[in-house]
Amino acid sequence: MSLVTKPTIMFPEHQINQEEMIDVLKDLFPYHPKWSTVERMIKNTQVESRNLLSPIKQVTTHPGFEYRNNLYKDEGLRMASEATQKVLSENKMKPEDIDLLIVVSCTGFLMPSLTSYLISDLNFRSNTKQLPIVQLGCVAGAWALNRAHEYTKAYPDHNVLLVSVEFSSLLFQPQDDKISSLISNCLFGDAVSACVIKGTPEEGDEGYLIEGIDSYLKKDSDHYIKYDVKSTGFHFGLDKDVMHSIKDVAPIMKDFIQKDFNANVNDLDFHIFHTGGRKILDELVSNLDLIEENVSKSRESLRIHGNIASGVVLDVLNDEFIANNRKNGDKGIMAAFGPGFTAEINRGTWIKN
Amino acid sequence: MSLVTKPTIMFPEHQINQEEMIDVLKDLFPYHPKWSTVERMIKNTQVESRNLLSPIKQVTTHPGFEYRNNLYKDEGLRMASEATQKVLSENKMKPEDIDLLIVVSCTGFLMPSLTSYLISDLNFRSNTKQLPIVQLGCVAGAWALNRAHEYTKAYPDHNVLLVSVEFSSLLFQPQDDKISSLISNCLFGDAVSACVIKGTPEEGDEGYLIEGIDSYLKKDSDHYIKYDVKSTGFHFGLDKDVMHSIKDVAPIMKDFIQKDFNANVNDLDFHIFHTGGRKILDELVSNLDLIEENVSKSRESLRIHGNIASGVVLDVLNDEFIANNRKNGDKGIMAAFGPGFTAEINRGTWIKN
Repeated sequence: MSLVTKPTIMFPEHQINQEEMIDVLKDLFPYHPKWSTVERMIKNTQVESRNLLSPIKQVTTHPGFEYRNNLYKDEGLRMASEATQKVLSENKMKPEDIDLLIVVSCTGFLMPSLTSYLISDLNFRSNTKQLPIVQLGCVAGAWALNRAHEYTKAYPDHNVLLVSVEFSSLLFQPQDDKISSLISNCLFGDAVSACVIKGTPEEGDEGYLIEGIDSYLKKDSDHYIKYDVKSTGFHFGLDKDVMHSIKDVAPIMKDFIQKDFNANVNDLDFHIFHTGGRKILDELVSNLDLIEENVSKSRESLRIHGNIASGVVLDVLNDEFIANNRKNGDKGIMAAFGPGFTAEINRGTWIKN
Repeated sequence: MSLVTKPTIMFPEHQINQEEMIDVLKDLFPYHPKWSTVERMIKNTQVESRNLLSPIKQVTTHPGFEYRNNLYKDEGLRMASEATQKVLSENKMKPEDIDLLIVVSCTGFLMPSLTSYLISDLNFRSNTKQLPIVQLGCVAGAWALNRAHEYTKAYPDHNVLLVSVEFSSLLFQPQDDKISSLISNCLFGDAVSACVIKGTPEEGDEGYLIEGIDSYLKKDSDHYIKYDVKSTGFHFGLDKDVMHSIKDVAPIMKDFIQKDFNANVNDLDFHIFHTGGRKILDELVSNLDLIEENVSKSRESLRIHGNIASGVVLDVLNDEFIANNRKNGDKGIMAAFGPGFTAEINRGTWIKN
């Protein structure tokens, strides 16, 4: 068993709404031959605002990969430290209570990794195990919860801390005017989030008790979501084929729920879906015959924050805590998608004593 | 329990001996003000030859980060596929017998990761779990065995495949004439290795049964071993402070052996140490009061291959299989070190039925 307790989500201070962003791109690419298509598609993302690590002027001016990666390190460590301290304090825990520290983040690269810096700076135990993940993109949040579930199956008295650090704005490439890239520039938001996963729930704990997990990789789909790695950093690429992925993963999700819950997806009480984008959510609705209400929290996260990559599932989970409508024993599912194409899925029960 | 079976180690075809390498560097930096010191220190590494992914002319000519990372992907995937097929075949296993695929590699960056490509290309099951690690450097091999141990504790009937892909020659920076960098250019070798870790040993299996694990991070030591990430790729940096690390980790290793085996390190039958370099091995000998014989396999790996990063522990372990001197019930230890500064340690018993 593994109890995911209330996450902490932190957003950097610089906010931009989609109208402002459209103006920024129009200024950057004044002669784009397909501008009306681009503008229509940006409006179709249903993203209204996003938080960014830096003012938009700095985001769109590429100061070099080295500068960006140093900024990633400084601000990533600062915000990850703050999120760690906040979530531990909210759980009435100290760094020494954590046995495994997972940091997931696909928008910068460090060696030593953020896990090492956090263990050293915040005085975690010197034997804290570390699991730093950088190559799993948006699926990494749910992936980490699944790995934490496996870990606490082996060590039921251990606790895991998961931190997600995503600054997609550091991947803005001002010379890339591909339509899909311009849309992506308006889709992803920056955020740092954290949560504690307990191997054994304690009296009074509330949270999402993961009881089953599944993983999926679609063959020959590496071009769906990918980075090109260049001297200018990571260049995000999204192929429209990615829309074919949900029809393949939906039956797996259906079987997963059917087998373990003997239920239909709409019979479940809560649904935590990664917000790859509006169309991915539409595909989920269509392929799982979901009622709209069951994607509403994911759509709301997308609307006000954009796609915050591996942090989305923590944000949507956090909304379940904030809404405070969950009853002890409620059943639910979480699913996230990322490069590969891969999916990570889990199911479980809401605990509220 | 987790049984590490015989590894496969593959070396790329281009070989260079240290005398040739000294000539190459002398040509590249003909006016180096400290050349005699550099040459003396290179000879002191006790590395005699290394295998490199490319001919030395291509290694020393930086063709750009993008070119190098593409080469990393193409050749990494090619050699990782070959090593995977070989080690599975030697274990009389098929890709579908693997439940968790771990790829450790700190010399390139891919998204999707090598785990995804291997699962897709070699027809692993679509629900194979993936664990791609890129930020743990030389410690990643032993780290992965420790994580495989935890995983099989939760899933005793599962099997794990570990693949290590290390092409340190892709990090050669021809404009970096720091003494420590010139030494590093003569220290690291390229290799791809793989091994299977079984949750439950079968009749007739031989291997290293891991029975206990430990992790260690030394506070405020992030500068010991690190990458600077620039438009020209990863710049490896080694601080001489790293020599202080072994005196801190040695007591932990002693306690770990004493507590579980009630033994002294020299009482153990086999010793698998990461070969950070000659001085790191000297420090181990000195701080653990090791008899020379117990570091001989690590020194030999360093001499003929250089430091092959996360693959070293698999190479030294492989030498135990090849030497064929292990008896059923022999006791041993493995320890590796990497950026952080971190150490991963495990202990166990040789199984030979």
